[in-house]
Amino acid sequence: MTMADRMFDTHPALDAIDGPALAACLQACRECATACTACADACLAESDVTELIACIRTDLDCAEACAATAAILTRRTATDPQIVKAQVTATRTIARACAEECEMHAEHHAHCRLCAEACRSCERACTELLAALE
Amino acid sequence: MTMADRMFDTHPALDAIDGPALAACLQACRECATACTACADACLAESDVTELIACIRTDLDCAEACAATAAILTRRTATDPQIVKAQVTATRTIARACAEECEMHAEHHAHCRLCAEACRSCERACTELLAALE
Amino acid sequence: MTMADRMFDTHPALDAIDGPALAACLQACRECATACTACADACLAESDVTELIACIRTDLDCAEACAATAAILTRRTATDPQIVKAQVTATRTIARACAEECEMHAEHHAHCRLCAEACRSCERACTELLAALE
Amino acid sequence: MTMADRMFDTHPALDAIDGPALAACLQACRECATACTACADACLAESDVTELIACIRTDLDCAEACAATAAILTRRTATDPQIVKAQVTATRTIARACAEECEMHAEHHAHCRLCAEACRSCERACTELLAALE
Repeated sequence: MTMADRMFDTHPALDAIDGPALAACLQACRECATACTACADACLAESDVTELIACIRTDLDCAEACAATAAILTRRTATDPQIVKAQVTATRTIARACAEECEMHAEHHAHCRLCAEACRSCERACTELLAALE
Repeated sequence: MTMADRMFDTHPALDAIDGPALAACLQACRECATACTACADACLAESDVTELIACIRTDLDCAEACAATAAILTRRTATDPQIVKAQVTATRTIARACAEECEMHAEHHAHCRLCAEACRSCERACTELLAALE
Repeated sequence: MTMADRMFDTHPALDAIDGPALAACLQACRECATACTACADACLAESDVTELIACIRTDLDCAEACAATAAILTRRTATDPQIVKAQVTATRTIARACAEECEMHAEHHAHCRLCAEACRSCERACTELLAALE
Repeated sequence: MTMADRMFDTHPALDAIDGPALAACLQACRECATACTACADACLAESDVTELIACIRTDLDCAEACAATAAILTRRTATDPQIVKAQVTATRTIARACAEECEMHAEHHAHCRLCAEACRSCERACTELLAALE
């Protein structure tokens, strides 16, 4: 169980959002934020850093969006489904864009390969949460 | 001139996004994040805090989204317009939702009134940046 | 293995900071940020919310500090140990203050008890990383 | 008047921290966070980016710490002076470290010069708030 799941178990008035879909999306956003922060940093240390400028930029944006989404999903009191839907929709697009960028460098850099996987997992988890929100 | 504007003037390779619309949206997001953080906190100190739970929740979410958007808009290297569009679209929805919530308490609490105004300004600035991105 | 650990394995030029102490502190900061965000939110939904105002405030501050510290610890390129030391020292103090506040409500609220544990783990992990940085 | 100052004027129960010193530190932290985010990004677009790796890293860390500090200072309900002191002390050290790094590139890059100034302003504002907290 993740820390978020353990905390949800103690919540006095959880919102009605599909629990497993929300928990999976939250975890995927947290991991994507970590992967993107780490990938931007690893790119900076590569000898071909000049080839990785767009990747660093996209990683930083994706980390920022995913961290915000994770915080929003961690809150369950008086949830406005419209807000959740808006932010998760944005994050799906951003994670996909970041995956596409990282995939271009995945053969040369293992951190880009891992980060692309984390972005694709995040994209999928956002799609599944959005389906559950319909 | 804001700090962001002064920094943009020194950027070696600004992206092609409409400068004034971007700068206005960035500034509106920063102010909205500050207003929402402060409003959530002021609500906590009110004697009728139990009437303000949804307002606090929405403020915290809006502050989170606006801060992420502001950071994304502060970066101008290798910008992916798709990412900007996705996050600004989400922020417009979230700022509108937060404005609607704060407006319900605007008569009783000056911080809710000010915060609603900051959210409406943010909503408008997002709309204008999205128009400029078309 | 956490996502951060997997990413560190792919880093081309890791800094010289003690790996296990850093990874443990990073993970503890991430879990503490999640616990504090969730605890503040759960407190908001409690019928005795007026008794929990200081707890909500401290949770929000601790979440903010821990998230910043986690991001800083996730970067390993050109690390300035002085920066790491400063931020981890602050986080140790803040996590301890938040633990003390949450412990006062731990008997009545399971989320405060869990959050206090996460704060104490974070405090310990900070102490251990600071010892490794000497 | 900044948005934070306008919001403080509506707060029902402001803490006892010295108002002007707190407001100045908050504003300096916000401007430093913006300058550091923008400087890291501008460095990425420079042809001598390989000379600027440490500057980018330090900028990202300083932006993270300053944003956390600004959020903490924006809250005035049930303030724990110990938490404020801890985070402002860290930010002073981090802003100074970032100023020293940016000053090394200030002759060649106007964004580093501006960013160094914002860091020094932040360092001074932290020192003044810490003096007021004694």
